[in-house]
Amino acid sequence: MEFTVAQIADVIAATVEGDAQAKIKTVCKIEAGFEGGLTFLANPKYTHYIYETKATAAIVNKDFVPEKPVPCTMLRVENSYFAFAKLLDFYNQMKKNSKVGVSKMACVAESAKIGQNVYIGEFASIGENVVIGDNTKIFPHVCLGDNVKVGHDTVLNSGVKIYAECVVGNDCIIHAGTVIGADGFGFAAQNGEFTKVPQIGNVVIEDNVEIGANTCIDRATMGSTIIHKNAKIDNLVQIAHNVEVGEGSAFAAQSGVSGSTKVGKHCIFAGQVGIAGHITIGDQTIVAAQSGVTNSLKGGQAYLGSPAIPITQERRLIIYRKKLPELFQKMDEISKLVN
Amino acid sequence: MEFTVAQIADVIAATVEGDAQAKIKTVCKIEAGFEGGLTFLANPKYTHYIYETKATAAIVNKDFVPEKPVPCTMLRVENSYFAFAKLLDFYNQMKKNSKVGVSKMACVAESAKIGQNVYIGEFASIGENVVIGDNTKIFPHVCLGDNVKVGHDTVLNSGVKIYAECVVGNDCIIHAGTVIGADGFGFAAQNGEFTKVPQIGNVVIEDNVEIGANTCIDRATMGSTIIHKNAKIDNLVQIAHNVEVGEGSAFAAQSGVSGSTKVGKHCIFAGQVGIAGHITIGDQTIVAAQSGVTNSLKGGQAYLGSPAIPITQERRLIIYRKKLPELFQKMDEISKLVN
Amino acid sequence: MEFTVAQIADVIAATVEGDAQAKIKTVCKIEAGFEGGLTFLANPKYTHYIYETKATAAIVNKDFVPEKPVPCTMLRVENSYFAFAKLLDFYNQMKKNSKVGVSKMACVAESAKIGQNVYIGEFASIGENVVIGDNTKIFPHVCLGDNVKVGHDTVLNSGVKIYAECVVGNDCIIHAGTVIGADGFGFAAQNGEFTKVPQIGNVVIEDNVEIGANTCIDRATMGSTIIHKNAKIDNLVQIAHNVEVGEGSAFAAQSGVSGSTKVGKHCIFAGQVGIAGHITIGDQTIVAAQSGVTNSLKGGQAYLGSPAIPITQERRLIIYRKKLPELFQKMDEISKLVN
Repeated sequence: MEFTVAQIADVIAATVEGDAQAKIKTVCKIEAGFEGGLTFLANPKYTHYIYETKATAAIVNKDFVPEKPVPCTMLRVENSYFAFAKLLDFYNQMKKNSKVGVSKMACVAESAKIGQNVYIGEFASIGENVVIGDNTKIFPHVCLGDNVKVGHDTVLNSGVKIYAECVVGNDCIIHAGTVIGADGFGFAAQNGEFTKVPQIGNVVIEDNVEIGANTCIDRATMGSTIIHKNAKIDNLVQIAHNVEVGEGSAFAAQSGVSGSTKVGKHCIFAGQVGIAGHITIGDQTIVAAQSGVTNSLKGGQAYLGSPAIPITQERRLIIYRKKLPELFQKMDEISKLVN
Repeated sequence: MEFTVAQIADVIAATVEGDAQAKIKTVCKIEAGFEGGLTFLANPKYTHYIYETKATAAIVNKDFVPEKPVPCTMLRVENSYFAFAKLLDFYNQMKKNSKVGVSKMACVAESAKIGQNVYIGEFASIGENVVIGDNTKIFPHVCLGDNVKVGHDTVLNSGVKIYAECVVGNDCIIHAGTVIGADGFGFAAQNGEFTKVPQIGNVVIEDNVEIGANTCIDRATMGSTIIHKNAKIDNLVQIAHNVEVGEGSAFAAQSGVSGSTKVGKHCIFAGQVGIAGHITIGDQTIVAAQSGVTNSLKGGQAYLGSPAIPITQERRLIIYRKKLPELFQKMDEISKLVN
Repeated sequence: MEFTVAQIADVIAATVEGDAQAKIKTVCKIEAGFEGGLTFLANPKYTHYIYETKATAAIVNKDFVPEKPVPCTMLRVENSYFAFAKLLDFYNQMKKNSKVGVSKMACVAESAKIGQNVYIGEFASIGENVVIGDNTKIFPHVCLGDNVKVGHDTVLNSGVKIYAECVVGNDCIIHAGTVIGADGFGFAAQNGEFTKVPQIGNVVIEDNVEIGANTCIDRATMGSTIIHKNAKIDNLVQIAHNVEVGEGSAFAAQSGVSGSTKVGKHCIFAGQVGIAGHITIGDQTIVAAQSGVTNSLKGGQAYLGSPAIPITQERRLIIYRKKLPELFQKMDEISKLVN
């Protein structure tokens, strides 16, 4: 496959600066460009690479103002990262391995209802009354418990385990090893002994959700643990029982939410963030890495620290804390002066 | 199934306040109650819901004093959460899927000894000389290495991996994807190179232990990593080689214990807590979320912070830290005064 | 098997102090020694055990000076831990279960190329064009996607999932449940919506790398996520897309590295450490447990804290922070004096 810069500009609605007839064969990184490669510039930290890239062309933001001559053709768009993602998606679709059919080495209950154009890999185990929508791809070693429902155009990668009664929507991607619907961590303590609280709810994952590898989303004690549409959850994340994750919210790797907490829409949680149970996080909350959220947050703000407070306040405290030695010294000096 | 409030009161030894003949069909959440639903009130944060719940009846603590009229029948017990758990357990037993039998698509070594009434799902792999007790349920994709022993009435959910020589007790539940007995992280460093220290011990899990999903418990270098009876371990927890977890201790999600540490009885570790290696944690220690325990603790106390210190001391320091800006300002003012 | 102390001294180049003809039957822990057992002393915390050990012999460091009589024979070497590891390795090789052959219950694509003396367990799924080197052992439930390459003498434990196109070197060990090559967490945000950035790169793991259980190493957006030779990665670790881990670096459990960060050689990261994305960590950096690295580090130093700073500075700040209450009190007293 070979395209001209002009053809690509057409697809992503870009204006071309440089050779519109240059030939593009593949995509490449800006710092490791080569003849025939198309790259992009989005992160300002990488700006210096564009002045020496060997890529044939680069997608840049409309408002990018070079400080030196740029050696490659530029395609200017509103949002370079977004435009590049769109192109990669085309590229990926073309090379995608479109597996179809149910392996003879899979174990599918007779009562299961399988849609059109579905792939079920070897050693997948599909329980009683499971429903799987059209075009969904189930890789080897996936286990779907009884009565699980999976929508259409969803991908469950190798080794995903979904417990009985759980529901996964359309256009979802769940990565290898992730466990959906294990029992929530609920025990009643009495006289120093734990009694298990049976977890009879389920997990509901709405449409267009992506979940990383080896993540855990526990079933509700009663009712449902809910991941609303367009949410994105990274690897090794813990979502406890009865949590509700709002539409379009994102959790980076190794973050965790304790039981019954309600997370709003379009929130972003960085890596290793912890969130207490039984609280409410407002829409568009941002929490920086390793922070610990202990109270409800009203939303629309960024937080940092453990316990998490508004990010500007915490950053100020970090600076003051670093000055503690000099503060103590000053205090000693003053003490001597006044005593 | 339908019961009267009086029948339920009988099971959980409750005194009834309201209509003892009201009909109960199922359980429900207090904030999402409905006709025929039975709920409970344990967490004080939820108290306000009881004044407007649509549930038919609610289990409450003996000493609950309503501030307004309660619209539903109340069942008063010593511990409402515990009583509700007991009921849920009945409910769950009734609807439990009692799978039995060894799937033809499982792979069971001829030398394995399988008890009565055991379930072994498809694609489970049972190694040489494995022993499995009566009534134990082994879900699809479980892998038991050679010489593994599993007690009676234990449940190993889909994809649990237990390495050779490890032992799991009776009445245990292990959730999907958990790995028991992988090599401890032990290397001898010499001249900047790592030499692997073979891990020839095993893991011993005693009776009535519950372990969450995608958790890891490493085998001992020599001897055993031991999880004593009644311990409860959540998802994504790391228990390193040669650790010993005392009877009835609980670890919330994403917490971790480093090698050779000995944890006492009835301790509670909240989410994302980290514990250093080669230390001893006394009985009934409580450690708050995200704390880092760096030294041995004598037990019977609560800790917070990284490094963890007694919780009241740390909470005081958090407040003082927040006042640093005003302290620095005051210092400036005084400096001007005395100079 | 039975050896004399003299025979063992020969293997590890030790000088013997005590009975060189004493018989050794197995290895044991210093605090739980017994007749016929060989132990070692490396960690100074365990020194007191050597004065009362029941082991027949102990490997100790050349420069160990006992404060009391030692009841067992001593084998003095340069590095006792290293020497013991070497012996354990022999021991382990002898008892190692040398499984060979391809199970009839495995699913191996016809186009796959399998080396000599390879073991492929039941329910393993080997994709199209996979290449597996000699003596490599693939346990049950492993899934190798299309075009995966695995070197010789490598062990992939039960349930390891390797996505298409990834490469694993020679002499590697990957523990159960680990996922190699899942999609990096890359989304382009526009108008509050996430668009997935296809992840078309792969993961390359070089020779002699060990990776723990339930760890995740994501494939690169473009190019490769690279784990260089001799690196050691513990359980539940997150390595994000496009990360590069330098030769001989080690990550303890539950640590994580964000996208595109480059980690140098011979670095050590303790448990639950988090590292920001798009930064560079110099060679021989050490980061203490639970620290958060937010900026590039030049290497050769130890760091602590979140955000991480040089360890001596952070330790000093921890001490000063603990003295905050008295500082505030002093300030109050002085305020009264000068006003």
